[in-house]
Amino acid sequence: MNLSRARERLVVIGGDAAGMSAASQARRLKGPGELEIVAFERGHFTSYSACGIPYWVGGDVTERDELVARTPEEHRARDIDLRLRTEVTELDLDRQRVRARDVDSGEEAWTSYDKLVLATGARPIRPDMPGADAAGVHGVQTLDDGQALLDTLEHTRGRRAVVVGAGYIGVEMAEALIKRGYEVTVVNRGSEPMSTLDPDMGCLVHEAMEGLGITMVNDAEVTKILTGEGGTSPLERSRELGGGRELRGGRELRGGRVRAVVTQDREFPADVVVLGIGVRPETTLARAAGLPLGPHGGLLTDRSMRVRGQENIWAGGDCVEVLDLVSGQERHIPLGTHANKHGQVIGTNAGGGYATFPGVVGTAVSKVCDLEIARTGLREKDAHRVGLRFESVTIESTSRAGYYPNASPMTVKMLAEHRTGRLLGVQIVGREGAGKRVDIAAVALTAGMTVEQMTALDLGYAPPFSPVWDPILVAARKASAKIRGTS
Amino acid sequence: MNLSRARERLVVIGGDAAGMSAASQARRLKGPGELEIVAFERGHFTSYSACGIPYWVGGDVTERDELVARTPEEHRARDIDLRLRTEVTELDLDRQRVRARDVDSGEEAWTSYDKLVLATGARPIRPDMPGADAAGVHGVQTLDDGQALLDTLEHTRGRRAVVVGAGYIGVEMAEALIKRGYEVTVVNRGSEPMSTLDPDMGCLVHEAMEGLGITMVNDAEVTKILTGEGGTSPLERSRELGGGRELRGGRELRGGRVRAVVTQDREFPADVVVLGIGVRPETTLARAAGLPLGPHGGLLTDRSMRVRGQENIWAGGDCVEVLDLVSGQERHIPLGTHANKHGQVIGTNAGGGYATFPGVVGTAVSKVCDLEIARTGLREKDAHRVGLRFESVTIESTSRAGYYPNASPMTVKMLAEHRTGRLLGVQIVGREGAGKRVDIAAVALTAGMTVEQMTALDLGYAPPFSPVWDPILVAARKASAKIRGTS
Repeated sequence: MNLSRARERLVVIGGDAAGMSAASQARRLKGPGELEIVAFERGHFTSYSACGIPYWVGGDVTERDELVARTPEEHRARDIDLRLRTEVTELDLDRQRVRARDVDSGEEAWTSYDKLVLATGARPIRPDMPGADAAGVHGVQTLDDGQALLDTLEHTRGRRAVVVGAGYIGVEMAEALIKRGYEVTVVNRGSEPMSTLDPDMGCLVHEAMEGLGITMVNDAEVTKILTGEGGTSPLERSRELGGGRELRGGRELRGGRVRAVVTQDREFPADVVVLGIGVRPETTLARAAGLPLGPHGGLLTDRSMRVRGQENIWAGGDCVEVLDLVSGQERHIPLGTHANKHGQVIGTNAGGGYATFPGVVGTAVSKVCDLEIARTGLREKDAHRVGLRFESVTIESTSRAGYYPNASPMTVKMLAEHRTGRLLGVQIVGREGAGKRVDIAAVALTAGMTVEQMTALDLGYAPPFSPVWDPILVAARKASAKIRGTS
Repeated sequence: MNLSRARERLVVIGGDAAGMSAASQARRLKGPGELEIVAFERGHFTSYSACGIPYWVGGDVTERDELVARTPEEHRARDIDLRLRTEVTELDLDRQRVRARDVDSGEEAWTSYDKLVLATGARPIRPDMPGADAAGVHGVQTLDDGQALLDTLEHTRGRRAVVVGAGYIGVEMAEALIKRGYEVTVVNRGSEPMSTLDPDMGCLVHEAMEGLGITMVNDAEVTKILTGEGGTSPLERSRELGGGRELRGGRELRGGRVRAVVTQDREFPADVVVLGIGVRPETTLARAAGLPLGPHGGLLTDRSMRVRGQENIWAGGDCVEVLDLVSGQERHIPLGTHANKHGQVIGTNAGGGYATFPGVVGTAVSKVCDLEIARTGLREKDAHRVGLRFESVTIESTSRAGYYPNASPMTVKMLAEHRTGRLLGVQIVGREGAGKRVDIAAVALTAGMTVEQMTALDLGYAPPFSPVWDPILVAARKASAKIRGTS
């Protein structure tokens, strides 16, 4: 028996929120004498806020570096052996090692691990259609993507922008481009923008976007992107800069600059195109290694964020699926706030402590100019899909007492389970003060409250903050009455 | 056996939030053919927002009538027999009747009831000291009080205002008077303003108030109010107008207009004085009738808001004590939002339905200019008082992502029970976006969550709305770590 205890090595793949939170938390619990930490990151940056990119592009945030919560140097100062521009190309679970390639030199080497963290993030869905890689067509997933888009905006004379997709990124980018003085058209496959809401609520977003001067085109499938005179593809330029980790390499330019976006029945002239059609879990390595993936292509973990069936491998952030506590099913929700929590839990466990991530209720909040949009829990179609019968109510109220200055209208939709009255979901569309009210419902969902229980919630009231019945309480009262059959 | 079923009569005493909500809800459930509803109100108004008075005085609300949610005419249109300027002077429980006096004519008559609702509100504490009734000394409990204060402000040349008391009403009135261009001094008995917060958080309010140009005088006991040249007492004038229901009649003017407020060791010149030193439950009738009162002088009810031991008498609003779900003890919390809920519950039960009011967690939110102040649950001294041992943490965070424009700092204090980690209370002082975050903690308290459970809450995140870890989550993490003994 060998009494000399070797220093353990924790290997982290992915240097953004989940990976570096895990690394930092593990380091907090175990010093470098006990635990060696090696982190591989394909790009140039660590621990940055991808969610902040639309506000950087829109000019609310002036410096790229403001989006970086912790630089590579700061991580290294905490004894994390961070290897930038280094891409992991293979996992060898049997021999507990990973093969990594230096992106610039092409050199490869194996690194063994005792504990492994997969935080490989997500990759944007890029339509496989003619012109999708043309100059002037941009994703906004990484800081490098954002920089490439800003460069294009600076060098483009035309002021016509087309945003493809009307989810969070789409509407946020529409706002950013409006702020930069563009004429903005949003082309959307769904019947209304914000498909994370039910269409009756998405319709309110639609109306508000039109009111902001954004042209909203629904039920539109983009079939190709037309190009004109030549230019350098931002994809290519981004790769030259070092690239975000999501870029697919090796593709040849199909020719020239973007000129228009074409749908099944129309053509939208465009000087710049932003793609915001969502992301998928980046699990190429995990899949090749035979790790368990869920229905959405994300890694499956247990409550301690350990990859199912694995003793010493954790996964978190945009590459995993999470348990939806309301539906009881897995979902893929790429969101910085979850990634940070995952990293915290993983780092605690990998550092010898104990923590769990119980799941999510599906809360999200966003804005387009002064319109606030929020949701938590299940939409109507989610409830149908998982076999839950429900009652639905929609109410209008205001953010403050009606007589108080700047009381702004808001619409709250609430779903509750038929018979039991258990809260299933809330959607809110309004102005200042509307969005974060969703947190009330998020906590109530987590606690499994009924809408009747919610009617008695002791929420903060004063005229500058709320009507005497908070809009959430108004909705709960109406839902409760409907459940009881008295309305 | 008499088979003809007589129409029942519901008598309501008090025409503001609790009483008229109860009457309206009972009417919704039972038409006039089944239920007769008689409501007595001493004053001129019904269903108004007393909480809105500071904003009316401050000029944010321009018309008194904006504060009236439902007028006497609207109530009468719903077949509620509303008797204004009619004061109930006696309850006869044995014979199920009340004696009411017409305030103007002095005539009295008995009215019998089948069901009775006591919603007699609260009366402001008025110091029994020389000068307390002088012209220029005002309470702000009723609409009539507010009108009398506004009249004084209009006819007063001097610009020196002294506010006595630094609770919600005190700080809100300080803001109102600053807005009207007064030089404002707040004289406070406690060591810091906002005694509903722990002193370390109250201290932040103190600093902010000084920053707003308000002179804050703590540890000061008002001993008398000095008067100068004559004038009409606002109390007298208010009585002439019909008066709020809280005014004590019959007191003679002690002479002249207010000139200064005197404390144990100083004298503060004053052209106008506002009293904001709290209220007590108005339970004179109930006490005389032998109904059960709690330690704070409020009526005691069961979960259905029925007065304890009574079959057909309910009570709600500022005249009752409510169960604090965190401490397990009764408290007196005069707040419009509770009064409305009580009325709703009472009206449902009196109308033949079923509803309960489970209790409160002690949530309150307020502001003084752009400073937001919120609390829920127990303060340190509350926890001590009820024998709960706790850990306390205080954190600094921001309302939005740090890089997003107008991210404003906020301080969150969190108390959690020793060992179990159960959340006990949260206090918040900050700017825009700080106050209503208390709702997250209010729901978590209601659900009995631990701070560790709270660290996983799925709260709305996007850079314009929150840092990636919401301030409440940051506090929960720190509290959780402290409970585990790892910090």
